[in-house]
Amino acid sequence: MITQYEIVLPRFRRGFHPITGIVEDKIGDLPEKGLLNLFLRHTSAALTINENADPDVPVDMNYALNNIVPENDPGYRHTLEGPDDMPAHVKSSLLSVSVTIPVVRGRLGLGTWQGIFLCEFRNSGGSRKITATLYQ
Amino acid sequence: MITQYEIVLPRFRRGFHPITGIVEDKIGDLPEKGLLNLFLRHTSAALTINENADPDVPVDMNYALNNIVPENDPGYRHTLEGPDDMPAHVKSSLLSVSVTIPVVRGRLGLGTWQGIFLCEFRNSGGSRKITATLYQ
Amino acid sequence: MITQYEIVLPRFRRGFHPITGIVEDKIGDLPEKGLLNLFLRHTSAALTINENADPDVPVDMNYALNNIVPENDPGYRHTLEGPDDMPAHVKSSLLSVSVTIPVVRGRLGLGTWQGIFLCEFRNSGGSRKITATLYQ
Repeated sequence: MITQYEIVLPRFRRGFHPITGIVEDKIGDLPEKGLLNLFLRHTSAALTINENADPDVPVDMNYALNNIVPENDPGYRHTLEGPDDMPAHVKSSLLSVSVTIPVVRGRLGLGTWQGIFLCEFRNSGGSRKITATLYQ
Repeated sequence: MITQYEIVLPRFRRGFHPITGIVEDKIGDLPEKGLLNLFLRHTSAALTINENADPDVPVDMNYALNNIVPENDPGYRHTLEGPDDMPAHVKSSLLSVSVTIPVVRGRLGLGTWQGIFLCEFRNSGGSRKITATLYQ
Repeated sequence: MITQYEIVLPRFRRGFHPITGIVEDKIGDLPEKGLLNLFLRHTSAALTINENADPDVPVDMNYALNNIVPENDPGYRHTLEGPDDMPAHVKSSLLSVSVTIPVVRGRLGLGTWQGIFLCEFRNSGGSRKITATLYQ
């Protein structure tokens, strides 16, 4: 059985933002076992699973990604939408827009320290939408 | 219900190449809802979802990946197949060979600006093969 | 039909370690067709698919990731668990903790040169756990 949900996220500032609670609230009761795919329908943001305990981790994640994909590289051609745009596309492919999470005993099968993050790579990215597909 | 397809891509030169149309043509009619997994059976190429509108974006993606994973690093041991080979393996893991895309109302549930890309990291990579698995 | 398995990996040292055999042994007989999702329940390690033939490749992969995400960056805040910790979180998101592999004709549908790797990014990471979910 397949169920699909559209999750409309609030507008986030540039950075990594925990969204596990938003996802769980939207989907509600989960089956005993299954798989949940989250697919972000955007090209300058990403979804990732990472440490959900220390709020310094998402800050450092954003910092690290900014170092790996610097802005204002003179080699870029796609510059019309600003210096944060093309690096945002690169980061989106590095982290990816699609994550698949097991459902185990009626809950998301995340590890103790894991949470789901929306990674917003634009300075003014607007609201982002996720298609959630649940298989049971 | 599960259906599988083998998609044989044309030989692409090094770079990012849109293949959404090739994938859609191969699979044909899509169900009302489901999930499509694309799995690339190679280790020096990748699949990614990114901006499908401005043809400068895939050019800049290739440029950015070449900067993140430079060739001719004297620290590499696996160099027998040429300077583009080991960086190609690194890029393949960074972007990944497996993407899962929702099927929504009979179509691939991609966002307005999203397309599927084959990322060819070898100078002469040959034809690449994808196993497509459709769940409905 | 959905079947789930917990795979407890042996404790690996920092680096990339082939685990295809461990995964196959745990799951046993595979269906004619299906999808296998592997989800690593940790935030400083990752799963990836890459070259399984030359043992120099995993060594070079580890080397390349260490270059892309250097330790001891003075910009990091999350440093209490040691200099290898925050870079491990970054690498975990870059490579991801969730991979989906097709099952084709009763076998994992990997390409000739592909294998599954546990990427251990901590110096002393401990035993890692994977939730394997098989759809058929």
